[in-house]
Amino acid sequence: MKTSFYNYIQQLQDRITSTLEELDGKAKFQEDLWSRPEGGGGRTRVIENGAIFEKGGVNISAVHGPLPESMQAYFKVQESQFYACGISLVLHPQNPLVPTVHANFRYFELYDLQHQLQDQWFGGGLDLTPYYLFDEDVQHFHRVCKAACDPHDPLFYSTYKKRCDSYFWNSHRQEARGVGGLFFDYLRPTDSITAAQRYGFTTAVGDAFLEAYAPLVQKRKDQKFTDHQRHWQEIRRGRYVEFNLIHDKGTLFGLKTNGRIESILMSLPPKVQWVYDHHPQDGSEEARLIEVLKNPKDWI
Amino acid sequence: MKTSFYNYIQQLQDRITSTLEELDGKAKFQEDLWSRPEGGGGRTRVIENGAIFEKGGVNISAVHGPLPESMQAYFKVQESQFYACGISLVLHPQNPLVPTVHANFRYFELYDLQHQLQDQWFGGGLDLTPYYLFDEDVQHFHRVCKAACDPHDPLFYSTYKKRCDSYFWNSHRQEARGVGGLFFDYLRPTDSITAAQRYGFTTAVGDAFLEAYAPLVQKRKDQKFTDHQRHWQEIRRGRYVEFNLIHDKGTLFGLKTNGRIESILMSLPPKVQWVYDHHPQDGSEEARLIEVLKNPKDWI
Repeated sequence: MKTSFYNYIQQLQDRITSTLEELDGKAKFQEDLWSRPEGGGGRTRVIENGAIFEKGGVNISAVHGPLPESMQAYFKVQESQFYACGISLVLHPQNPLVPTVHANFRYFELYDLQHQLQDQWFGGGLDLTPYYLFDEDVQHFHRVCKAACDPHDPLFYSTYKKRCDSYFWNSHRQEARGVGGLFFDYLRPTDSITAAQRYGFTTAVGDAFLEAYAPLVQKRKDQKFTDHQRHWQEIRRGRYVEFNLIHDKGTLFGLKTNGRIESILMSLPPKVQWVYDHHPQDGSEEARLIEVLKNPKDWI
Repeated sequence: MKTSFYNYIQQLQDRITSTLEELDGKAKFQEDLWSRPEGGGGRTRVIENGAIFEKGGVNISAVHGPLPESMQAYFKVQESQFYACGISLVLHPQNPLVPTVHANFRYFELYDLQHQLQDQWFGGGLDLTPYYLFDEDVQHFHRVCKAACDPHDPLFYSTYKKRCDSYFWNSHRQEARGVGGLFFDYLRPTDSITAAQRYGFTTAVGDAFLEAYAPLVQKRKDQKFTDHQRHWQEIRRGRYVEFNLIHDKGTLFGLKTNGRIESILMSLPPKVQWVYDHHPQDGSEEARLIEVLKNPKDWI
């Protein structure tokens, strides 16, 4: 399973980076290979100053070794060995009419000190962070998410859509990071679901990423925007930073397992502003976004 | 003691904001009064888009009520009542040759459920975050810190200087946030030190703030800077954000006690950049700063 999923994320990284380069037409991904002293490493691919993508990364990594103490407490297990691999991507477009997107698909194994497998699970999801709301774009994104889920279980979409809304919640602001998508974790084999079926579901959602996001980029990338819209985007990017540094478990996991800092923090936007006590004008498009972020809605 | 210290921080806020407004010459502090549903409130003063200060805040607050559960665990106490008041300031100058500064002075009381005082302590400090190193400026800042400490105990400066270096440590980057200053916490009355003496020391350091910082602003504010230096400042401000959101206990305390978000996060810089895997050129002034941040040194 380790090998299969690692091969899958390698291929998915290739597929996504080549499609995004084609879309962008100007910038190329820069590749960095890195290794982790305690075991494993990764292949980071970052794009900067593109025609569309101001900054973004599509990274894979596979790390293993003794489970750090802080993670033992987190998983509530004794001294253990672990293996984790995954793909993680964040794209920050230049144009505030093109949404930011994040996706992550990962597989985890835990072993006892005799290297016997004790636990295994899949996790992942994808979610959209627009700066301006085009309802039909958000609906498209959610429809593709639902279509990827439905063949596996008719309840998956609604369950993991809700989980996404509650996970990407900037609790200190009482608003969502974005308009959601899917989020699932700890998908273990059960009496009625095999590990192969968990793999099938996770990779089906991974396969849906480009279909969910690329059409939105295509549709909005050449639309004109104003300085006012760009300013709003940079302020909203500040909320993205707040979520990732205060609340995000993926970032925390990376920092606690001595992951490569530049690969973990590639998720941070290129240019960001914090304005004291900023509020959009009543009745504006910006105010409509905030209203939806404060009250996550169903899009299908 | 509560009343004395609260009066002190009110006066200190007035003194600092009026001096900074005079220095800036263009912008004025905007005042917001706020109250906390569970008890207490604050007086936030923020300056933006000044001639010198691009963004900054000088805030006081006094909060009280039942100690939140998360803080019970943190302080290792049972169900309690608390009172906390303090002044907290951060200044982000426009000119990258003028350093960013932070200071905080606070007083804390813990009570049992019968409102009997169980514990009390002072905490605080001030620290400097330059973007370009002028050794004589850093030395001035540290000399004023030392002069404020020495009459109280000849060991205070070296002890709290070291504590400052270890507190403002961006562990995920293995570098200090800045060039330090003083940091002290849990200064309780002891057999040989009265609460009044703790008050005397804390307020002496508070009184030293303007003397430590204002001359550096005066000296550097009109020096010309380049786009390259400004770019470097915005990248380094990103490290400031990382420290405040990932590591800073003050920010955490504010978020956990349901403080006013905009007053807590006024510490975040106005314009920030994250560039993937950025490294200054060997032998540059920027590289010299990093070298000192990675190896905190003695300035006196």
